[in-house]
Amino acid sequence: MAWPRAILTDSGGFQVFSLNDLRKVTDEGVTFRSHLDGSSHFYSPESAMAAQIGLGADIIMAFDECTEYPADRARTQASMELTLRWAERSKKYFEDHKHEVPWKAVASERWSVASDAKAQDSSQSSVLGSQQTKIPRSARNDNAEATRNNNNNEAEARYTDHWPLATDHCPTQSLFGIVQGGMDLELRKESAERTIEIGFAGYAIGGLSVGEPRERTREVIEATLEHLPADKPRYVMGVGTPEEIVEYASMGVDMMDCVLPTRAARHGLLFTSEGKVSIKQARYAQDAGPLDPNCGCRVCQRYSRAYLRHLYASNEVLAQVLNTLHNLSFYLDTMRRVRHSIELGEESRFSLASRSRPKP
Amino acid sequence: MAWPRAILTDSGGFQVFSLNDLRKVTDEGVTFRSHLDGSSHFYSPESAMAAQIGLGADIIMAFDECTEYPADRARTQASMELTLRWAERSKKYFEDHKHEVPWKAVASERWSVASDAKAQDSSQSSVLGSQQTKIPRSARNDNAEATRNNNNNEAEARYTDHWPLATDHCPTQSLFGIVQGGMDLELRKESAERTIEIGFAGYAIGGLSVGEPRERTREVIEATLEHLPADKPRYVMGVGTPEEIVEYASMGVDMMDCVLPTRAARHGLLFTSEGKVSIKQARYAQDAGPLDPNCGCRVCQRYSRAYLRHLYASNEVLAQVLNTLHNLSFYLDTMRRVRHSIELGEESRFSLASRSRPKP
Repeated sequence: MAWPRAILTDSGGFQVFSLNDLRKVTDEGVTFRSHLDGSSHFYSPESAMAAQIGLGADIIMAFDECTEYPADRARTQASMELTLRWAERSKKYFEDHKHEVPWKAVASERWSVASDAKAQDSSQSSVLGSQQTKIPRSARNDNAEATRNNNNNEAEARYTDHWPLATDHCPTQSLFGIVQGGMDLELRKESAERTIEIGFAGYAIGGLSVGEPRERTREVIEATLEHLPADKPRYVMGVGTPEEIVEYASMGVDMMDCVLPTRAARHGLLFTSEGKVSIKQARYAQDAGPLDPNCGCRVCQRYSRAYLRHLYASNEVLAQVLNTLHNLSFYLDTMRRVRHSIELGEESRFSLASRSRPKP
Repeated sequence: MAWPRAILTDSGGFQVFSLNDLRKVTDEGVTFRSHLDGSSHFYSPESAMAAQIGLGADIIMAFDECTEYPADRARTQASMELTLRWAERSKKYFEDHKHEVPWKAVASERWSVASDAKAQDSSQSSVLGSQQTKIPRSARNDNAEATRNNNNNEAEARYTDHWPLATDHCPTQSLFGIVQGGMDLELRKESAERTIEIGFAGYAIGGLSVGEPRERTREVIEATLEHLPADKPRYVMGVGTPEEIVEYASMGVDMMDCVLPTRAARHGLLFTSEGKVSIKQARYAQDAGPLDPNCGCRVCQRYSRAYLRHLYASNEVLAQVLNTLHNLSFYLDTMRRVRHSIELGEESRFSLASRSRPKP
């Protein structure tokens, strides 16, 4: 894949959940049939950890069960207990095997270089005040790079650059725990506290965006965040729209992930500073203006709405490519605005949030 | 489309030819059914010119009939005569309407700026000694650019840069004639001479790559080139492989066009300095090396053969994107080598050609 920046992998818990009719859950793990070829597979906390250690992502996730919506209290509690047992097994397997990550040897060696360099510039701090964890850029491409005679000094510099917070320990992967508990705020509190007891490098709020109303999502996030430590990354999984990202960030969420920008792009739904644009509409057939006049991405700098509409209507591969480039640019711009707003301080954060937060 | 460099459009003659079962040819023009929606259309020399003037490409082509292969002498001659009548009508329509090209007004104004600039640097000459025509970079994007507040000085500079040969006339589109005559060398000679009599800015050799053996293609090109003026661009339509490009360039061909690099890329067939690579093959599943160790393109610099094979096997859009980028880079590199070889002089041209030309 040759991605030179941080990578996060999910454990497969949510992905198996989405195969509702093809799975069977036991305490040991999940048996499911592939939607691609019908083949049978078994995932357990241990196999999910082994896969993620083998892939070598920077952040990996505990194996969890995503509770369906709606679910009664007994079912929600049983599901939460299962996720907690799996969290302990995930942590144990990770602690026993984390040295097996493919880039561990290279990372350890380089770590001392990075630490020395950083000791002279300890004033640097994260833009996100609450995010104090160390996220190493892995050296996963080193072997491939070596065969191509790339410049090792440049690779070294990039590696060091991507560890701005590195100070006190040799890097390995960071394992995050996942809080479940459905829409029940009491169970969310219990799940959060017991997940923290097990102890992880960061904490995710899972089991949202599963069909519940958006206002309910916000309430669960707000109630759960209270019980998560502010000095560890707090990550809401599977959200959201640009407005939701701004809103949740203003509540203290550090990380989010979502297929929305790329999936919507492939279906011609584009996010702009002036709202959503469905580029397939005939109204854009003669529109010579840029997709978003306030966007600096290379799609908006170069192409007209009429051309983007033509590409989509003609089913051109380039439609998917350009639409995806724009939506990802728009999301990155949104996060840049969020970080800038946080830098400016608490007051600005609230004014930014007020644009999308429902009035009481 | 926002393509900032030279654009060439074909007249539709060959494209209609490829719809063999759906067309009816008369002296007036061609009636055909769309393979997309079954709708009926009529193309004539006049309508083909009107379309190409409206599109505003830098080089446009006369409307011709591509003679099928095989064809007897009577059929080949009748087809050639039809193409000659259509060439005259194409030329007449173009002369009467060439001022209607959308960028004409902007081009005329800018032309004086460009001419002044070039007067001080008249020592510049084309790398291709035989290519003396003026190919203007059109100003077709000016309106769109203006609405985006782009830097006009920068656009002006780019515009001037792309007219390196401009010296003596106000630019408009360049209309090329197309030589037909099937595989009959006598008819090819006659077609060339009578097309030159009509008079065009450049001359194309059409009706090749229609199923004939490659050696026959080379013979027809060689025999036809003799009758085309060396001080106008000579363009072989619809070829070819990298080896053919080198071979035909060494024979004096200035221009070629082909879908091969992009179509082959979409089917996983990649051109490299070590020969063709069918990236779908299982032998590449674990191959961590670059696609082409001698290629500087961003695909070869970043990705492994194993990754490219995975993308193709998974039917990812990115497979088409990366494969196309590489094949186009390889073709551009091939043309760069050809130009460099021509710059080095006649001897070098022959040594370059000897790599692919059959020994007598």
